[in-house]
This record gives sequence, structure tokens and C-alpha cells, in this order.
Amino acid sequence: MSSVVQTRPVSPSKAHPTPPQTPPRKQAKLPEKEEEPADMNIPDNYVAWTLKNQKALPPVSWDNWWRELNYLSLSILTITPAIALVGAYYTRLRWETAVWSVFYYFVTGLGITAGYHRLWAHRSYNASKPLQYALATAGAGAVEGSIKWWSRGHRAHHRYTDTDLDPYNAHKGFWYSHVGWMIVKPRRKPGVADVSDLSRNEVVRWQHRWYLQLIIGMGFLVPTFVAGLGWGDWAGGFVYAGAARLCFVHHSTFCVNSLAHWLGEAPFDDKHTPRDHVITALVTIGEGYHNFHHQFPMDYRNAIKWYQYDPTKWFIALMQKVGLASHLKVFPENEVRKGQLTMQLKRLREAQENLTFAPDVNELPVISWESFQEQAAKRSLVVIGGFIHDVSAFVDEHPGGRHLITKNIGKDATTAFFGGVYDHSNAAHNWLSMMRVGVLHGGTQHGLDDKNIPPSQRLRVARY
Amino acid sequence: MSSVVQTRPVSPSKAHPTPPQTPPRKQAKLPEKEEEPADMNIPDNYVAWTLKNQKALPPVSWDNWWRELNYLSLSILTITPAIALVGAYYTRLRWETAVWSVFYYFVTGLGITAGYHRLWAHRSYNASKPLQYALATAGAGAVEGSIKWWSRGHRAHHRYTDTDLDPYNAHKGFWYSHVGWMIVKPRRKPGVADVSDLSRNEVVRWQHRWYLQLIIGMGFLVPTFVAGLGWGDWAGGFVYAGAARLCFVHHSTFCVNSLAHWLGEAPFDDKHTPRDHVITALVTIGEGYHNFHHQFPMDYRNAIKWYQYDPTKWFIALMQKVGLASHLKVFPENEVRKGQLTMQLKRLREAQENLTFAPDVNELPVISWESFQEQAAKRSLVVIGGFIHDVSAFVDEHPGGRHLITKNIGKDATTAFFGGVYDHSNAAHNWLSMMRVGVLHGGTQHGLDDKNIPPSQRLRVARY
Ligand code: HEM
Ligand code: HEM
Ligand SMILES: [Fe+2]
Ligand SMILES: [Fe+2]
Ligand SMILES: [Fe+2]
Ligand SMILES: [Fe+2]
Repeated sequence: MSSVVQTRPVSPSKAHPTPPQTPPRKQAKLPEKEEEPADMNIPDNYVAWTLKNQKALPPVSWDNWWRELNYLSLSILTITPAIALVGAYYTRLRWETAVWSVFYYFVTGLGITAGYHRLWAHRSYNASKPLQYALATAGAGAVEGSIKWWSRGHRAHHRYTDTDLDPYNAHKGFWYSHVGWMIVKPRRKPGVADVSDLSRNEVVRWQHRWYLQLIIGMGFLVPTFVAGLGWGDWAGGFVYAGAARLCFVHHSTFCVNSLAHWLGEAPFDDKHTPRDHVITALVTIGEGYHNFHHQFPMDYRNAIKWYQYDPTKWFIALMQKVGLASHLKVFPENEVRKGQLTMQLKRLREAQENLTFAPDVNELPVISWESFQEQAAKRSLVVIGGFIHDVSAFVDEHPGGRHLITKNIGKDATTAFFGGVYDHSNAAHNWLSMMRVGVLHGGTQHGLDDKNIPPSQRLRVARY
Repeated sequence: MSSVVQTRPVSPSKAHPTPPQTPPRKQAKLPEKEEEPADMNIPDNYVAWTLKNQKALPPVSWDNWWRELNYLSLSILTITPAIALVGAYYTRLRWETAVWSVFYYFVTGLGITAGYHRLWAHRSYNASKPLQYALATAGAGAVEGSIKWWSRGHRAHHRYTDTDLDPYNAHKGFWYSHVGWMIVKPRRKPGVADVSDLSRNEVVRWQHRWYLQLIIGMGFLVPTFVAGLGWGDWAGGFVYAGAARLCFVHHSTFCVNSLAHWLGEAPFDDKHTPRDHVITALVTIGEGYHNFHHQFPMDYRNAIKWYQYDPTKWFIALMQKVGLASHLKVFPENEVRKGQLTMQLKRLREAQENLTFAPDVNELPVISWESFQEQAAKRSLVVIGGFIHDVSAFVDEHPGGRHLITKNIGKDATTAFFGGVYDHSNAAHNWLSMMRVGVLHGGTQHGLDDKNIPPSQRLRVARY
């Protein structure tokens, strides 16, 4: 087991994997030399080592910010909304164009969610070639980079969530994870993540190769031409189905990195920032159950309940129905439930710790029957279930009336209390136990067994 | 402690308390001889003894039913809706009368809920004389019997809930608990319940004495005269604010015995039938949180959250604000929370029992490093955290890729798995634990301590 105790990587140079040595061939069809996964030879302490030894760029400041911007991303993210706004001012929105824009928003959005994200970044199902080409083409219309670039970043995001090796580290704030990470040059390279499976994929390579043509065609020409040739609305097609729709798709996707790491509950695990929320789902075509997704990333679903909004899941299921997709991966139900159970127990444990429970047998003095009688002459003591209770403060509060308690002072009221006179509720038993002041000598041999444990203490959240 | 083991009541005759020996005096103002509580001298096994030895009337059948009906109740409960229906057919509903009817519904309804129920039956707060007279008068307008009769039955209902000594035993079915118990003569006397506190109460006695006058006046004359003198709608006042309103108040109250023991959840205790539901609350002026109410009957609230519908509680709080009520009783928050916690734990325990968890150290064979190496040549075995795992079925499912697991077959991947390469989620740890097939000899001295316990097993619902 010596490999486990090693403290330095064998060869630190390998910790920063170099790009594949063989340049990608031109003919996609020819079988390639198997590319080695980028993380094949990283050492066992890769994460700690990298964070400690890899130099990060200096922080962005008032002096250097203009040098640290990524002007390409910045242009795309500012010019598109500018075109949309100015264009909308001069162009009347026709209903055909409105319908077409919304439809095209879903087409290109699903290219990202069902294609880029769930198919390629997470391999959560298998897609036939035609579906893959369709998704790669539709996804290009969202203008968010090629499948390979996108998936590489996204895999690093999952692998190093909330750390400095996560390209959209949510700990750096909402706006950083939304757009900041694209506009400012990253301070660190994202941690290593293997995408050799994508390098081998014909469709991914095809998209990478024709990427510029695809974004121009799918991002602007198709939306414009459909509206222009269809109902003569060339300008509207460009402004609404082109620029405005693109803006919406952009920020819709970005919300998965920002909103989904910020808004909502963590029903499966709260170790990291991802959260579940229906609002996020609505704005991201179903990617809003992000707490689930980070726990079970290779599950083709994000929402597990039928009534939750996850059109991406519905689309994938439909593709399976029509024979274009297969091997939809689902995390074992048993394990999903375990995560939920643990989170619920965690919450109940907090509740439990904020409550006061009755003293235990061992914390109380043992008192003889004679001594109990003596003391009962001075204060209101009643024996119930082998315990001696001081009921002074309670007699006047008793819903059954003062008299039923006072007549039992200095006596054993076990039978009466346990149903002989009144079958007290669990709440009454719990409250009673809070009045314990002693244990009657020999009093626990009542044959009442676990009735001595107040109902609220029979089930407990325990740490192993 | 010999009193506890007694098996027969000392004097069985006392088990059926006889009515007070001294006839009530005529002048309510004179101080009375203290009446002994009806349940003062019952034996400690009263409930069991009574159920066993007290004779019940024969069951109602096709032969005897006409002899077993309570014709007075039956008349009131059939003639009132008949008047309302026929009257409504011939009488146009004016909006003033509609508003007045709804208002009067709340007035007489609150007479029952805030007066009969929470004040007198449960003593959940103290009311000043003027408020008591107002409530006794308003409550009479609901025509449901005198305070004393009503409270005696209601106290028995709480004391013997769901048993044959409960006058509206919900186990006898929805319709029995709704109206059946009034229409058919009861098979058994309700169990003993003390109302000596009410016998001593000036207002209760005043109401008892003038009861017939009060129901005629409040049930019909007042609603009719207000509408008649107010806006000339004598007929409408009689039909809508009188008969129809009375019908609604009746069935509204009856719902507390039927619907509230049938519909909804049991967040505080599920030992008996009472349930919490917002629909019940809406139709009963706030008496719908009945599971809470049966656990904490002397709490002046039924709904404990501010956003839940409990106008009766709001009314009582308002009366306190204006100085007409005091000593509003509230069950200790700590005890209320305990009940909720127990019910939630009960539910989670069921969930826990339906899940499969990883085998424990003691259930697994201890295997030497050499033997592990040998066997790893034949099947895919990986050591992580001192346990040997068979990952054969999992390698192709691994979201981090096949290669990261296969390169660790026959090795110790603890460091890599625990964050060196990837800081696996709790879900991954849980799933991993399901693949355990052995314990490595000496392998648990990893200094990883409780990391050996899968996250899903660190918190458990335990029975004491
Ligand atoms: C000192 C210990 C006692 C405590 C803490 C206690 C507590 C309670 C509580 C909380 C209730 C409300 C109903 C419920 O939650 O079940 C209740 C009702 C009642 N208790 Fe006790 N009780 C005590 C002793 C007794 C004894 C010794 C007797 C009989 C001899 C008795 C007879 C009753 C009866 C008859 C009721 C029913 C009241 C009604 O629903 O109208 N209690 N008690
Ligand atoms: C046989 C035991 C293993 C199991 C059951 C397992 C399970 C998982 C699971 C469920 C995930 C999904 C993300 C998550 O839930 O955290 C995952 C991801 C990952 N695993 Fe493992 N793993 C195992 C062994 C390993 C080993 C030995 C390594 C490294 C040498 C490794 C490296 C990774 C990496 C890098 C990811 C990140 C994938 C991504 O998010 O893109 N795993 N593993
Ligand atoms: Fe994320
Ligand atoms: Fe993802
Ligand atoms: Fe009830
Ligand atoms: Fe009640």
C-alpha cells in the first residue's frame, strides 16, 4: 500500500497535461490512434498538489483589468443584446416571428441541454448518429463554443465544484459564475478533465471543424431565412429569432452555473453549492434540479418526479420512444433515496438537538418508597411508571382537572395514568417525563418495560 | 404499591357515577355547596371495567330502528334544512340579507368554537363575565344543546377518543360521527367526564335555565328581526339568516367530529383518528387542526402557524387585546415540537427500512493483501478505505471514466477516491459501500476513522 502514502507526484510536469501530441487528422472517417485520457497519469494527490503549486494569474484590479478581459466573449455578450434592443425598437414583432423565436429558442436550447450537456459532457445516454448531428447543429445555434470546449469546462466544473479548479466556481459570486468567468481571463486553468472520448467522436469532430460556419448559419442565417422566406419578415427574423433569441438562450444556459448554484434547497446533499429550484428549471429548459444533478450527473434526468419541469428529460425519453436514443442511464433508486434520507435526518437531528428531553434513569437519585412518602407530604410528588414526578407546577394546568392529580399525591398513579382512568396521549407522556425528579427504589420492575421511555425518546436520530 | 395491582374496582356501583345528590338551587347568585367531581371516586381500572361490564343496548336493526331514533334531534336536523330549501325557493336573496347571514353564521359559530368548545369544554383561557354572557348567548343561536350538555359529551369524546365510551366514536364511520350519534339513541352512555366546574359557573347555569328562550330568540327571532327592521326583509331574515344559516352552523360543527377525524395528516400523533386539514379548518371556523387539538386540547390555538386558518384563535387573541380574556393557555413549544419530531422520525424510519444498506465490517470476510492481489487478477477488485470492492459491474458506469478505475484494480485507491484525484460525492461513497466484498487485513488502520462508514449510515433513525 505504499502508493497511498506518497506525498509528492511522481513527475509534477505530468500534473499539467499537455494537449494531445498527434494533431487531429483531416479525414474524420479514418480510425485514429487511441488517444490517452488526459487524466490517466496524474498522481494520487493531484488536486492538493495543483492548488498548492500551480501559479495563478494576479488578481484583477483597477490597474490591469483592461488587459485581463476576454474581448471576444465580451463582444459576443454585449453586441448580441445591443442588436436585439436597437432592432426591436425599429422592428415590429409579428406573431409568426414570435412563435418561431420561441420555438427556435427551444431547438437551440435543447441542443445545449440534451446534446452538449446530458449527452456529451455526461454520457447519460446513447444517441444515434442522426440525432447526434441534429443536436450538434442545433447546439451550435446557441453560440456557446464547440461541444469539446464546452464539455471540457463542464467536466472540470463537476469534478472540482466550488474550488479554484472549477472554471465557474460559484464561491466567486453570482455574477462571476454567470458571465464573469467568460469576460475576464481565468486566473487559473480549469483542473484536468478527460475528454478523449469526445476527441474520438465523429460528430464532435465534425462540429469542431465546421464550427464557424455552423454558428453563422444556425445562429443567424436559419432564423432569418425561415422568417424571411416563410412570411416575409426578414428583419424580424434577424432581430427576434436571431439576436433576441440568442440572448435568451445564452442567459438561460448561464443560469445553470449561477442561479442553480444559488437559489433553492439541497435535498440530496449540501456539501456543495448546487441547489434545486423550480424557477431555475423554468428558465433553463429543465436543468433546475441541480442539486440532484451534481450528485447523480450521469442520470439522464434532472427532475425525478413526473410533475417537475424537465423538458430536456421528456425530449430524451421521446427520442428513445422513436428509436433515436438508447441506454438512458438512471442512478439506482436505492442510492437516490439514501441521499434524501440523510439530508432529512440531518434536519431532524438539528431539531432534536434544540429540544430538551427528560432526564435518564441514571441521572436521577434512587429514592425509597418511605422517603417518597415523607417528601410527598411537603411537595406534590406522584409515582408513575417507576419514576417520581414533581407535579406542583402542573396540577392547575391539568386538562383532566386538579382533583385527579391531587388525589394521587404520595401514591402510585401508574395504572390510572396508563389508561385505567385515561389513556394519556404521547404528548402527555412526554410532558410527564419532564417532571421526573427521582427513580423509585425497585420501581422499574413494573413490567411496563419500554413504557418507561417517553414516546418522544423511543425513536432518535443517532450518529452511527 | 398494592393499589396498582388491584383487578376489580372497590365498589363497581361507583363506576357509573350517579347525578349530583343536591338538586341545583334556583337562585344562581347564592354560593353553592362544592359539588364533587363526577370522576373523583372512579377506580383505577375504570375504562376496562366499564367496557367489559356495562351493558350496551342491542344493535340497531331493521326490526327496531323506529324505536331507537331520537325524534327531537331528527326533527331539528330535518325540519331546519326543509324550511331553508322551501323558503329559498319562494324568497329572493337580497344582498343585505346575504351579508347578514354570513356574519351571523360567524357570530353563532364562534359562540360554539370560542365559547362552548375552547372556553368551557377545554378551559383553554379565562373569559370575563361580559364575554361569557355574549358567548353563551351567541352559542345558543347555534341550537346544539346547552353548554353543560355539550361539554360533557365533548369531554367524554376527548377522554375516550375512538372507543365505545366516546359519544361520537369515529371508528363507527363518517356518518355516525357526523349526525348518526344524535339521530340514533346511543348504544352506551358516554364514559364518565367531570363537568362540576361548569355546574358551578354562573353563566353556564344561566344559559341552562333560559335555554329554550335563548334558542328561539337567537336561533330565529334575532336573525329575522334584524333583517326585518333593518331593511324590511322579514322573510329573507327568517329563511336565510335563520334556517339556512343554522343548517350551515350545524354541519360546520358536526364536521369537527366527522371530517376532522377522517381527512388529512397526523403530524403530531397517529395513535388516534384526529387529523389536520386546511379544508376542515375552512368549514369549521378554524377547528381543522384537530390532530394538534387532540394532543394539546387545553391549548387555546388549533393552528399553530400564523398563516393557517384559525379565526377562533384570532378572535380569542383579540378578546385578550381588548381586555375581555386572559390566561390564554399554550402547550410548551418544546413538547409540541417533540410530537412532530417523533412523527417525522417514524416516517423516515419506514423509508430507512425500505432501503438496502452496505454490509458491516463484521459481516465481511477478512482478506490478506496477498490474497486480494491474487483474486484481483481474476475479477475487478479495488481497495478503498480498508474495504475490498468488486467493481466489475460498475467500471463501465463510472462517470469519471473506465480508465480511472481499471488502472486501480488490485491497488489501493483510497487517496485518489477520497479527494486526491476526485472528491467523490456522498452518493458515490454510498454506492461504493454497496460493492464491498471483504475487509483488508489490517486495512482499517488507515487513520480515516469514520470515513469507513458510508455517509448514508452516519445518521440513522434508531430505536432507543
Ligand atoms: C402528573 C401527571 C399527569 C400529566 C402530565 C397529565 C397530563 C395530561 C394531559 C397533557 C392531558 C390532555 C390530554 C392528552 O394530551 O392526553 C390529560 C388529560 C387527562 N388526564 Fe392527565 N395527566 C397526569 C396525571 C393524571 C392522572 C393521575 C389521572 C387520573 C387519575 C389523569 C387523568 C386525566 C384525564 C381523565 C384526562 C382527560 C381530560 C379530557 O380530555 O377532558 N391524569 N392529562
Ligand atoms: C470503484 C469505486 C468508485 C466509485 C463507486 C465511483 C463513483 C463515482 C461517481 C458516482 C461519480 C459521479 C460524481 C459523483 O457522484 O461524485 C464519480 C465521478 C468521478 N470519479 Fe469515481 N468512483 C470510483 C472510483 C474512482 C477512482 C478510483 C477514481 C480516480 C482514480 C475516480 C475518479 C472520478 C472522477 C475524476 C470523477 C469525476 C467525473 C466528472 O464529474 O466528470 N473514481 N465517481
Ligand atoms: Fe453546476
Ligand atoms: Fe452537468
Ligand atoms: Fe375530536
Ligand atoms: Fe375539543
